[in-house]
Amino acid sequence: MSYWISGFTDGEGSFVVSVISNSTTRFGKQIFPEFVITQGAKSKKSLEEIQKFFECGSIVLNKRYDNHNEHLYRFCIRSVKDLNSKVIPFFDEFSLRTSKRNDFLFFKKVIEMMVKKEHLTVRGWNKILVLASKMNRRKKRF
Amino acid sequence: MSYWISGFTDGEGSFVVSVISNSTTRFGKQIFPEFVITQGAKSKKSLEEIQKFFECGSIVLNKRYDNHNEHLYRFCIRSVKDLNSKVIPFFDEFSLRTSKRNDFLFFKKVIEMMVKKEHLTVRGWNKILVLASKMNRRKKRF
Repeated sequence: MSYWISGFTDGEGSFVVSVISNSTTRFGKQIFPEFVITQGAKSKKSLEEIQKFFECGSIVLNKRYDNHNEHLYRFCIRSVKDLNSKVIPFFDEFSLRTSKRNDFLFFKKVIEMMVKKEHLTVRGWNKILVLASKMNRRKKRF
Repeated sequence: MSYWISGFTDGEGSFVVSVISNSTTRFGKQIFPEFVITQGAKSKKSLEEIQKFFECGSIVLNKRYDNHNEHLYRFCIRSVKDLNSKVIPFFDEFSLRTSKRNDFLFFKKVIEMMVKKEHLTVRGWNKILVLASKMNRRKKRF
């Protein structure tokens, strides 16, 4: 199952670091990391298997993409604690083989900094923005 | 590597049965099965690893999709002999976990019929067309 998840993530997974507005935080914005896999309704079961494997994360109907023939489901892990204790060690052991590995390494660095609360400092915050901008996903948000 | 390939195929692979015009054949058309995985240039190495694993197939630059930021490469196995002796047994052993497994099962049936030369009979030919129409990929060709 582990190597299958690694391969499936190389195909369908995303390591996303978004920066969203949140006026209650120090910098008026919030760093929002997540590990995501999206599948059509016909393959929802495979997402449930992955959720069971990691023992965390949630599966939600993704209405933003419903111009497809079937509904899409989005499995995501957003908890920094779970990302740090489960997702990062998993992909350290069962390495990605495509260019998505580079995204993972940037993502890992962001999570490590967040665990150390470095994102609460100006220097750490700016460093995370640079790391996030180097990732392939959702560049447009920065 | 095997389970990784199974997972990666669930994400990025396609089992395709096309029907193309060929006036030299009995029915004026030809059944054209292939196993395909497409990746961006940055991940070409992963396709080379899969090609090495299966010891067959070819990798070609796919110019049809070059409206992307990077060139795409297409790994495909088209030989019915290789599909029958390598690809089918591989995915029988290392099962797909998404709805793509259904495509594989239709694909397997088509290959088995072609190995038995059943596609050269009217009955077999029509049966293959029905099977191909049930697969998710390239429906528009039929």
